Amino acid sequence: MDGPLVRMIDQPKLPHSFRIATMRTHRETADAIRTMVVRGAPAIGATGAFGIAQAALEFRGSDVKRFRQHMRSAEKTLSSTRPTAYDLFHGIRTVMDALKGAANVVRAKEAATLAATTYADWSAENCRLIGVHGSMLIKDGAGVLTHCNAGALACVDHGTALAPMRQARDNGKKMHVFVDETRPRCQGARLTAWEMTMEGISHSLIADNAAGHFMRTGEVDIAIVGADRIAANGDVANKIGTYEKAVVAKENGIPFYVAAPSSTFDFSLASGDSIPIEERSQDEVLYMFGMTGGLFPSMRRVRIAPAGTSARNPAFDVTPAKYVKGIITERGVFRPGSIKELKGK
Amino acid sequence: MDGPLVRMIDQPKLPHSFRIATMRTHRETADAIRTMVVRGAPAIGATGAFGIAQAALEFRGSDVKRFRQHMRSAEKTLSSTRPTAYDLFHGIRTVMDALKGAANVVRAKEAATLAATTYADWSAENCRLIGVHGSMLIKDGAGVLTHCNAGALACVDHGTALAPMRQARDNGKKMHVFVDETRPRCQGARLTAWEMTMEGISHSLIADNAAGHFMRTGEVDIAIVGADRIAANGDVANKIGTYEKAVVAKENGIPFYVAAPSSTFDFSLASGDSIPIEERSQDEVLYMFGMTGGLFPSMRRVRIAPAGTSARNPAFDVTPAKYVKGIITERGVFRPGSIKELKGK
Repeated sequence: MDGPLVRMIDQPKLPHSFRIATMRTHRETADAIRTMVVRGAPAIGATGAFGIAQAALEFRGSDVKRFRQHMRSAEKTLSSTRPTAYDLFHGIRTVMDALKGAANVVRAKEAATLAATTYADWSAENCRLIGVHGSMLIKDGAGVLTHCNAGALACVDHGTALAPMRQARDNGKKMHVFVDETRPRCQGARLTAWEMTMEGISHSLIADNAAGHFMRTGEVDIAIVGADRIAANGDVANKIGTYEKAVVAKENGIPFYVAAPSSTFDFSLASGDSIPIEERSQDEVLYMFGMTGGLFPSMRRVRIAPAGTSARNPAFDVTPAKYVKGIITERGVFRPGSIKELKGK
Repeated sequence: MDGPLVRMIDQPKLPHSFRIATMRTHRETADAIRTMVVRGAPAIGATGAFGIAQAALEFRGSDVKRFRQHMRSAEKTLSSTRPTAYDLFHGIRTVMDALKGAANVVRAKEAATLAATTYADWSAENCRLIGVHGSMLIKDGAGVLTHCNAGALACVDHGTALAPMRQARDNGKKMHVFVDETRPRCQGARLTAWEMTMEGISHSLIADNAAGHFMRTGEVDIAIVGADRIAANGDVANKIGTYEKAVVAKENGIPFYVAAPSSTFDFSLASGDSIPIEERSQDEVLYMFGMTGGLFPSMRRVRIAPAGTSARNPAFDVTPAKYVKGIITERGVFRPGSIKELKGK
């Protein structure tokens, strides 16, 4: 956040071009969340927090009643952008709660800015701690499978699923990461592969279909993914395809870990069955974005499927707790059945 | 086959353009198999058979010894195109065997042509029968999952996995087919979706990652896929990703069927562990083909992944027999453990 401006990496353009997008109003910030300029549960949590602070700064005047209306409307706008990731609501609510005690609009603006900045710092520190705890699970020379992008791009910094890999590398461990490409939006191929390249971590991009093959043939020793929402019983909503990988990992005796800060835990839901699953545009399946070759490369959208074919596009799935070996949090690694211990702490 | 010419649908161009490719020599036919102008186990079986016949017709002169050398060389060329699908070797050997008793080169040419044509007719009839047997497994109103393309395009006609759906439709049953897009080459998105559109069968294209979600949420009642090679114990090699779908189907109590003619059975292999798995070019994962939009649409290749990222690309995986409910053959539906009964029949 830079005064009333929210700046972020324009992720749909990666890895082909690195561009910083600037959101001038909370409505622009809401659009950035909706259109996935920013994505990843912790990152949209912090963006939601900044969006609320931005809304506070946008307000002109000192009328408390009108300010309250303005903020409730902004909360609604930002909350209705995406339904599944819990961090979004957590980030927004954290900043809204910080406004409550403010004596007047000026103080409320200060409180909102401070709360949003603190939230982002807290979120980054949580990811760093996830890296520390998770790195101990990665053995030297391990084959590591990951799905989607739960890296620094998905967070304020460090990442969730990728933080343990970064930390393990910093601790001198060697590893090879199998990066699921993660159709339909290819966050693995575009973003995780990019982060791995930047970090110099040995990796292979694979079709999502190939993850099971490498698990069965013994090249994968551990799987670590992120999460968009975790219910009280430890059921995990995460990027579509996570469920398949978790089932196949269990079938092959490969420990399947979910890395997520406490801001991803939704203790109000008894199980994953109540987590709303976002269905996104069918065009994400029917088309593919990429870079053309030749003298003047450009980003192009190409259609894969025939005219007359429609698609279904659930963006997330739910992995029941029984397939998850452990949840790597900022406080340590917990069995999914025991995360209730973290409630309210 | 048309005199010495082998003609086939140019499949990499589908669904964007429908073009018939003509192979003038057995070497061109071998290239067509290698580059997947033709693909699908039964289709490359018939193409291998026609390629051998084509090689016979190409021979000039009447020297039996030179003819024999020429045919052995052609057999080697055609056999070395792709390693996994068993039908290829079955088709080639069937025609080679038919030459054995020929009195001279002229008779051998006649025998080869007849054997190849008979092989293709037999293959098409097998697929028709697979449709008849398999259609009984599809209940009216069923949700059917399929992976890759085991349709008419993968065969001489009818298809293997898709034949039961065609037959069920002809029998008046309603169904909805979930079509896995099947990265990296998108045979589902390009070919199965195209066949479904042509046949007017209700279908949804889905990302491969979404198959597990729809199985878990109860929208899939039965899964039917094809096969590239089936070992004596019933282990199945098929398109990469099949293994994951089979494991998740079993976990959800969904019957998982493999549709394959007896030409796909390799009784010389005790288990699937001995089936050679083709690793194809990493470019298939790093890039994607599709159709651009606009006034002048064209087929373009776009790069998804960052420079500096490499990929691994196993084209097939092995599904152990325990995940397969039944194998739909031209002789009926068999438990994978009982396919030895079909040996030599």
